[in-house]
Amino acid sequence: MNEAPDDEGSAASQRISRRALFGFAGAAALGTAAAGFVVGDAVGSDASSSAADLVYPFRGEHQAGITTPAQDRLHFVAFDLRTNSRNEVIALLQRWTAAAERMCTGREVGAYGAVNGPYDAPPDDTGEALDLPAAGLTITFGFGRSFFTSKEGVDRFGVGDRMPASLVELPHFPGDTLEPGRSDGDICVQACSNDPQVAVHAVRNLARLAFGVAEVRWSQLGFGRTSSTSTAQQTPRNLFGFKDGTANLKVEQAELVDEHVWVQSGDDQEWLTGGSILVARRIRMLIETWDRTSLREQENIVGRTKGVGAPLSGGDEFTEPDFTLTGNDDQPLIPELSHVKLAHPSSHDGARMLRRGYNFVDGSDNLGRLDAGLFFLAYQRDPRTHFIPVQTALARDDGLNEYLRHVGSGIYAVPPGAGPGEHIGEGLFA
Amino acid sequence: MNEAPDDEGSAASQRISRRALFGFAGAAALGTAAAGFVVGDAVGSDASSSAADLVYPFRGEHQAGITTPAQDRLHFVAFDLRTNSRNEVIALLQRWTAAAERMCTGREVGAYGAVNGPYDAPPDDTGEALDLPAAGLTITFGFGRSFFTSKEGVDRFGVGDRMPASLVELPHFPGDTLEPGRSDGDICVQACSNDPQVAVHAVRNLARLAFGVAEVRWSQLGFGRTSSTSTAQQTPRNLFGFKDGTANLKVEQAELVDEHVWVQSGDDQEWLTGGSILVARRIRMLIETWDRTSLREQENIVGRTKGVGAPLSGGDEFTEPDFTLTGNDDQPLIPELSHVKLAHPSSHDGARMLRRGYNFVDGSDNLGRLDAGLFFLAYQRDPRTHFIPVQTALARDDGLNEYLRHVGSGIYAVPPGAGPGEHIGEGLFA
Repeated sequence: MNEAPDDEGSAASQRISRRALFGFAGAAALGTAAAGFVVGDAVGSDASSSAADLVYPFRGEHQAGITTPAQDRLHFVAFDLRTNSRNEVIALLQRWTAAAERMCTGREVGAYGAVNGPYDAPPDDTGEALDLPAAGLTITFGFGRSFFTSKEGVDRFGVGDRMPASLVELPHFPGDTLEPGRSDGDICVQACSNDPQVAVHAVRNLARLAFGVAEVRWSQLGFGRTSSTSTAQQTPRNLFGFKDGTANLKVEQAELVDEHVWVQSGDDQEWLTGGSILVARRIRMLIETWDRTSLREQENIVGRTKGVGAPLSGGDEFTEPDFTLTGNDDQPLIPELSHVKLAHPSSHDGARMLRRGYNFVDGSDNLGRLDAGLFFLAYQRDPRTHFIPVQTALARDDGLNEYLRHVGSGIYAVPPGAGPGEHIGEGLFA
Repeated sequence: MNEAPDDEGSAASQRISRRALFGFAGAAALGTAAAGFVVGDAVGSDASSSAADLVYPFRGEHQAGITTPAQDRLHFVAFDLRTNSRNEVIALLQRWTAAAERMCTGREVGAYGAVNGPYDAPPDDTGEALDLPAAGLTITFGFGRSFFTSKEGVDRFGVGDRMPASLVELPHFPGDTLEPGRSDGDICVQACSNDPQVAVHAVRNLARLAFGVAEVRWSQLGFGRTSSTSTAQQTPRNLFGFKDGTANLKVEQAELVDEHVWVQSGDDQEWLTGGSILVARRIRMLIETWDRTSLREQENIVGRTKGVGAPLSGGDEFTEPDFTLTGNDDQPLIPELSHVKLAHPSSHDGARMLRRGYNFVDGSDNLGRLDAGLFFLAYQRDPRTHFIPVQTALARDDGLNEYLRHVGSGIYAVPPGAGPGEHIGEGLFA
């Protein structure tokens, strides 16, 4: 009874019928989705595409989880490799690709899954997502600088000469108090889903498949998205209580996404074409201090109203800020050192990132403060023209710095999507 | 413009119209709910009572959040008081009661809320839940032993003689490796909601209202419920991949709930009548080790099948285990030392607890393992007949112990619900 693989249509597959039902119903509802990249099509408020029913194909021109309409929950993990074998790494990426593809359609990992395998072997799947649909699960992989750079004089995986020029070491920004145990890593995985148990299940099973080859360096859960990546989504709020990501790049802005997010042929290493560079920052927010500042100070620091999120120059949330407008005191209505001004594309040669950060609370610290903040994730074509100049300006002058601590940091080269039969990152090893 | 309180119907209230809409629509949908205690009525799968629309009144005979159908997400916090003033504590409980009552209907904290107060004062509400409905928020308060016991020879709040006899110090169980920074506390608050941002917002605002009087000792987020407390709910899975809480007490079993959960008049301190005793345990699961054990071992340790959750004596999930049935080898089909046998009411004079635990993952430890597990919450009439004997048996013999570490612990006296005009715990100070 425990011997049959979950071949659809077999009697054994009835044991996971609810999960299978959800998964396949979701895929069917998407119609053409199975053949291609559905981001932007799969979002909506009609009953046939609820948050739980969403299925995004793992394979495509780009990896899913970047322009995909930001799901509600995150589990992000950084792995360090425990092998110097290029072949073991490739085998790991093959296992991960197969598992990710299955999980993203709501199926279990492996041919047998959690309960249908040989009774005297560990199950193929850990089982905690058995009854759950994929809920829009995406799994996005990236390679850290340490994947490419020599370790103790050894080019471990023979890819030292394939490191993208844009995968630079981030400079030390004023105020950075980075913890190595929350930074970097050879490989990162971003799992996003509308169900946190599905995202956790994905990361946990990838870690399981890596046993002996890679181990978790650090991981981070996010409970609430802080950005919209589609015009169909409402703008969420960060833990400062402000709408976040109003001016974020959206999947519907295809030309801007090509210009600012996707690495283009000729930009850098050819294997990275169609990929992106991810910068991750764990930004602790000192919310107890923030909560004792006046509404006036909060709005002046941010440069937007707290309620509707309009720029202080007037209008509504989506009105462009007018940095030239002045008030009765001849001062700009939007302060020069406000966050919105310092981060605005007009201050950085038009540079725009695609952000998909998450709020986090990880218990409390030894001073009785909540260990809360923003786990910032930004995808871009080149951090040298995007994240680095923006963060340089913010780190120097942003009034928010009084309420922020950057405590973790990572930069990763995110390869393009895997084509049919390919494993993730195949081009890097070609 | 920033001066008007959020008096419903005023122009200013339009600034929070979405939140107000959700809140009041939810309350209206419940009909009689506004007048009383709706647990058990408010659950269901019909479109009119979706997880986001649920509203549970804060006031009632019992506190909400105990028999309330378990919501999906948790933020639990333990506070330590920084005052020796009985009056300051009462004032805090009054502020907390008013804030909790508002938040549980989807409204903001305070008369002005996040954006309508005086511009030069800190806002009344932190704002991150401005656009969100209550999503079934419940806020449940309890008092720890240290609230009653003398500190440095001082009966700080004059309630030393009112400590319930059942609020005993838990014994040290074999294998306990408790961390003080994840244990105990003068007052605990359990915030449950179907939206984690709403639960976090509740805890954060209660902490804010306590500034100078109480501070966070520890807090814990849970991302997925591991118990059902209503027959209308499906049984969820814990991070061992097994269904959890199949035999849990359910709100529909009114007589059993009275017998096992609610403190009855004459049991103990009269102020606790209608209340309960909460035991909280942070149980770390060594999931990486578990994932490498065979399905056979997993099922024999638990005593149930991993798939449908049926007892190994046969049947389906809700079939009563038959501990007398033996297999071909004349051994019981359900092993004598299985979790289901050791914890079963028949092994403990019928004792049953109402569990509403949550899965958690809090990053990873310094060995590259996920810091994952079960945050166990159990309500009971008296832990001396319920939690303590059950945990004594489990700590001695349960095969799961190899994969578990109890790292945090708390026991709290949970007062009855607040009546009209009362603050929470009013009877304790009467």
